[in-house]
Formats: sequence, C-alpha cells, structure tokens
Amino acid sequence: MLTFDLIKDNSKSGNGRDRSRLGRITTDHGIIETPIFMPVGTVGSVKAVSKEDLEHCGAQIILGNTYHLYLRPGCEVIEAMKGLHAFTAWDKPMLTDSGGFQFFSLAKLAKFTDEGVHFQSHIDGSRHFFSPERAVEIQMILGSDIMMSLDWCQGHPATDQQVAEALNKTTAWAKRGFDFWQENGAVNNLFGIVQGGMIKELRSLSAEQLTAINFPGFAIGGLSVGEPTEVMYEMADHTLPLLPSQKPRYIMGVGTPENLVTLVGMGCDMFDCVMPSRNARNGQLFTHTGTVNIPNAKYKTDERPIDETCGCYTCRNYSRAYLRHLYKSRELLSYRLNTIHNLYYYLDLMAKMRHAIKEDRFPEFQQQFFKMRQDQ
Amino acid sequence: MLTFDLIKDNSKSGNGRDRSRLGRITTDHGIIETPIFMPVGTVGSVKAVSKEDLEHCGAQIILGNTYHLYLRPGCEVIEAMKGLHAFTAWDKPMLTDSGGFQFFSLAKLAKFTDEGVHFQSHIDGSRHFFSPERAVEIQMILGSDIMMSLDWCQGHPATDQQVAEALNKTTAWAKRGFDFWQENGAVNNLFGIVQGGMIKELRSLSAEQLTAINFPGFAIGGLSVGEPTEVMYEMADHTLPLLPSQKPRYIMGVGTPENLVTLVGMGCDMFDCVMPSRNARNGQLFTHTGTVNIPNAKYKTDERPIDETCGCYTCRNYSRAYLRHLYKSRELLSYRLNTIHNLYYYLDLMAKMRHAIKEDRFPEFQQQFFKMRQDQ
Ligand SMILES: [Zn+2]
Ligand SMILES: [Zn+2]
Repeated sequence: MLTFDLIKDNSKSGNGRDRSRLGRITTDHGIIETPIFMPVGTVGSVKAVSKEDLEHCGAQIILGNTYHLYLRPGCEVIEAMKGLHAFTAWDKPMLTDSGGFQFFSLAKLAKFTDEGVHFQSHIDGSRHFFSPERAVEIQMILGSDIMMSLDWCQGHPATDQQVAEALNKTTAWAKRGFDFWQENGAVNNLFGIVQGGMIKELRSLSAEQLTAINFPGFAIGGLSVGEPTEVMYEMADHTLPLLPSQKPRYIMGVGTPENLVTLVGMGCDMFDCVMPSRNARNGQLFTHTGTVNIPNAKYKTDERPIDETCGCYTCRNYSRAYLRHLYKSRELLSYRLNTIHNLYYYLDLMAKMRHAIKEDRFPEFQQQFFKMRQDQ
Repeated sequence: MLTFDLIKDNSKSGNGRDRSRLGRITTDHGIIETPIFMPVGTVGSVKAVSKEDLEHCGAQIILGNTYHLYLRPGCEVIEAMKGLHAFTAWDKPMLTDSGGFQFFSLAKLAKFTDEGVHFQSHIDGSRHFFSPERAVEIQMILGSDIMMSLDWCQGHPATDQQVAEALNKTTAWAKRGFDFWQENGAVNNLFGIVQGGMIKELRSLSAEQLTAINFPGFAIGGLSVGEPTEVMYEMADHTLPLLPSQKPRYIMGVGTPENLVTLVGMGCDMFDCVMPSRNARNGQLFTHTGTVNIPNAKYKTDERPIDETCGCYTCRNYSRAYLRHLYKSRELLSYRLNTIHNLYYYLDLMAKMRHAIKEDRFPEFQQQFFKMRQDQ
C-alpha cells in the first residue's frame, strides 16, 4: 500500500487562488515527488527511449496501457516473465490504466454492458471481455504499483443521459473492482476514476460516490476528450476540491505544458499524456519560450541547441541544424533525441513547479511561465 | 597525415597460411587499432544508435557516405557547420567513401565519362557531377580523417572489357584525385582503391598502377558485388599481398563475421559493412554460435539474453522475450537495442582477433570461431 505525505497544501494556507500542493508518494518500487508527470510507455516501452534515458529525463514513474499489454505480448507472457517490472527491466514505480480509455478511443469495436466491456483486438480482430474484476486481475498480473479501476469514459459532446449512464456504470464497476482487489490481498494500489462529463452536478455525484470507497488515490477521467480547454479547466477546478486532500489526485490524459501549470495550481498531483513523445516524433520541440518546429528551413545551419536553458542530453550535444538533418532524413536517432528533449522539458517543468511551491512562489512561477511562453 | 605502425605481421613470421597483421593507425582524431571494423553512418548517424552507444560498442572509427551527405544535408550545410565532426558531434576518426559505390548501386541514374560521373539525386532527381577532383574537394569539406579516391566499381558478372575500362578509369581518376589533394595542402588522408573485377591479372595491374601513387593507404573495391564467396576470397587472397605491407589495407563493403575472420587471416586491416546494423533492424542477431532470429515464437518467454557470453548493454539488461516483444510491436527501442548488440558483436570479434594475433594464436582462434558458429 502506498503512503502519501502531503508536505504542503496551499489550498489551506494560500491566498485562495493558489491551491498547489507538494507531496510524496511512497510505493514498493520507490518514491514519487508530486506534482509529477508520467511518461506513457504504451506497450512496455516509452517510445524511442530507454530506461536510462527516462532516468536522465527525471522520470519517477511511467505508465503502461493495460489494453495494449493484454493483447501484446499478452498476460500469459508477462506472467511467465514475472511481471511488467522484470519484463521491461524498469525497476521504478509504474502505473497502468484499466483499458477504459482505449475502449473509448477504439469505440467502434467496444460494447459496454452491465457486466463489463466486450471488445475486439485492433491487431487481429479477436474477441475479448473485460469485467471490472478482470481489469484488476490483469493489472495484478502486470504488477503495477498503481492500478486503475475499469471506467466508462464518455466523449464530448454527449447527452446528459449518456454521461449519467457512464457515471453509474463507472461507480458500480469501481465498487466491484475494489472488492475484488480487497478479496485478493489488496496488493499494490487501486485508484478510483471520477467521471461525469462536462456537467458539474454529475462530477459532484461521481466524486461523492467514488470517495465513499476507500481507494488509496483518485483520478479524474473523461477530460481532454474534445471539449474546449476552458471547459476542461472548469471541470477540474470544480472536481479537484471534492477529492480527499490526504490522497493523491491524478488527471488522466492531460496535457500541454500550459495545462499542467494551470492544473497544478488547482491542486492536481499527477499527470500523463502522450503529447511530449508524440510531438517529439513529429519534430515539435517544447522550449521555455514556445515551440521549435525542427523541420523548418530556418534551422538549416542553426548551431544552437533546441533550448539554450535546457540541460538535457540532446541540448548538451546537438545543434538544431543536426537535429533538423536527422529529422528530414528520417534517421531513427532523430526520434530518440527529440523524445529525450521533450520528456526532459516536461519533467523539468514539474521539478520547477515543485521547487516554486516549496519556496512559496508558485503564483509568481505561473505568471513568469505564461509570460515567457507567450513571448515567442 | 596518418601514421601506420605495423606491430606484428604474420606474413613475415608465420607459417605461410596465417598472414594476419596487428597495427595502429594514428589520425588527427585519435588512434585506430587494426584489424578494425567501421560501422556505417550513412548520412552522419549510424542508424538507430548514438555516439555513446558506438563508444560502448567499441567503435574506433565510423564511415560516412559522401554521396548521401553531399545530397543531404548538402556540402554547404556541413561547411557552415565546420565539418562532419562538429556537425555530428562524433569526435573520433571518420572515413568517407567517394560516392563510387553509390554510383554503382544507383547505376540507372549514373553516367560515367572520362571527366567523371554525371548522376541524378535519388531524392529529388536533381542533376549533379562528380569529377575525381570534386570528390576529394567535397571530402575535404566534410573533413574526414580518411578520404577515398573516386573509383568505378563494376558489378558481377561483367565482361573483361568492362572490367578493364573501369580499372583504367579508376587509375586515371586516382592520379587526378591524388594530385588535387597534394595541390590543396594534402590535408587528412587519401586512400586509393584497387579494382579489377574477378580477374586476377587485372587486379594485379590495378594494384601495380595504384601502389605507384604514394597514397597513405589502399583499399580493395569491387568485392561483394554478387560474386560467390569463394571468388571474393580468391580475389582478396591474390590482391592483399600486392599492397605495401607498411600501409593500411581496407576491403570495402565486406562482410559477414566469417568473411572478417577469413580476411583478417589474409592480412586485411579495415572493414566496413551495413550488415550488422541492417540485420539488427530486421531482427537477425549475431551470436558466437550462430544467429538468433528474434521474432521467432520460441523466444516468447525466453528469459536469456541474446548471447550469454556478450557484454553489451542489450544483453546485460534485456531478455530475448522482451526484445521479441519490442520487435513484434515495432517499438523504436527495438532497433536501437538490436543494433547495439550486433555492432558490439562485430567490434568485439575484431578485438578478440587482435588479442589472438597479439598472443600468437590467430589460427587457433579462427578454427575455434568456425567450429562454434557451425555448431548451431
Ligand atoms: Zn533539451
Ligand atoms: Zn549483446
């Protein structure tokens, strides 16, 4: 079971607008300083980088996708290999999702019933079924430090009735998953997921139902599914304070650097998103002043690193000109160097936020961050 | 100008059948212990690996392809970036070819005249011309430690007349390239390339003509172009002793581990080949007993490393099962991990050969090597 030490909580001591928190999660595989960003390692590898690269970037915990791992290499392989940590040789904390988001994003193939989700593999079309119990059981086999309850994620827009149905099912499934977990030794940790679409009343209802269950942590799901950013902020701002302050809070699948800096200010502790790695593979590199679009001809003979203030391996070794050349030539090294930089940027941003919270200057940090990123 | 110290020469002291040599090439960017294998970094990056990976693998010198670099990023870019070493951040020795082999392998686009080679870019169809002088000039801009003369490589089979024509042109171009190099400060080092197809008399003639020019080293080109292995060995065995013993000898574009072990025994000092990296990207991994075809289902839950005797990063960290999973999932990390292993295997094989030569047991090493590789 994890422990969560809330080192600082500005919602108590602050000026009302700054609700940032500083915390420490202790798991069997190590400590996570929060707020934290978790790189996404879909099938047991964060695309294009190694575990040493991740450590260099400052990764304290990575995410694996249960849906993908269940299909390939398959549970039986990971079980034979003694779990995801041993299989991938990543010995730090790991979080796995429940598959809920993939059922949503591969919706054409998924059918939701009271019992669970019937779906077809996107790889070979084979038919499978996840109950809330099975989703937990699979994650216990994977051996992730933080497991997620099976949830029903609704897209945007959706009718009130659709959102309510998904919410009710998510609560029922959360209870069943929790009971299964308890009955099977309560190993590792299971988080509940708050749904409720873009309707505050339903977010409140979901938070109320979920927090009645004694999960070691809570997530907010169903955001960044097509709604305007302002609506996403409104939902997060409304929901975060409804979650118990003494447990970690995780907003799933979000987001841009601006999103992270805003949501940390609202009291969120954990994030994951494919954006830094996906953008890296598309040549979009984050800097403290904006974005470097590396294929751009203006970088042809640019001897500067991506970001002169960045301490990452890529910036310490290579010029924009060389990175542009690698990208244009589709060299495999390009994907790795770009991904290292973007992940370093994200994780360094989280470290800077933790530092600012610690030094009682998070609002100033936020202001400065937005000013610099707008300057470009 | 490089210096070549021939530390040991078994063609003088040996039993007549072992003509292996131990040497040391000193260049402006460092020392190369021979016999050595040079990983191929086509466009200024050895595919899928970083400079630190190359150092881990034991790379002492890497190869760049003038044809590719000239087209992309282009000479003007590399000149603006102060040469290939600064551009790529590889600060150890580098060898560049002359483009000759690419004109051969992209022959449909190339037209050979007395003056040089007219060709069209395989990227955008634009028209270009390399004279022997221009080929050296471009390599001087690249700043490679070892530059190669422009040659005319013939395929196999070819008529005697075709081979003779290519040979004559190669000699004429070698002289012109050499003169140009001398007139322009004789910076770095320029090697001559022996041609002559699969005809011993023409190989002798080419060697005679080339060695009359005071190149700091010599290569044998036009091998591994479709001829049977035995013919390639016959040509190498015939030609190597015709080259001056006090200068490095390089067989271009060869070959398999078996080829390397055989040709070192004939007195060859330098090799390059895309095989270890290309095979790695196709999941073919070299071991001391043969080949591991990583996609094979039998490795599904195989906890062993690729090769239990290998000290590479990949073997020290990952199982065949995980490598198979990464390969089947087309994860980018797969290409890197496989390439590290195969390059390490090749460079470790060279180190083992140097060690065996030093300890006066190269024939025994050869025997043992072939026995182990056959056992599989
Ligand atoms: Zn960087
Ligand atoms: Zn290895």
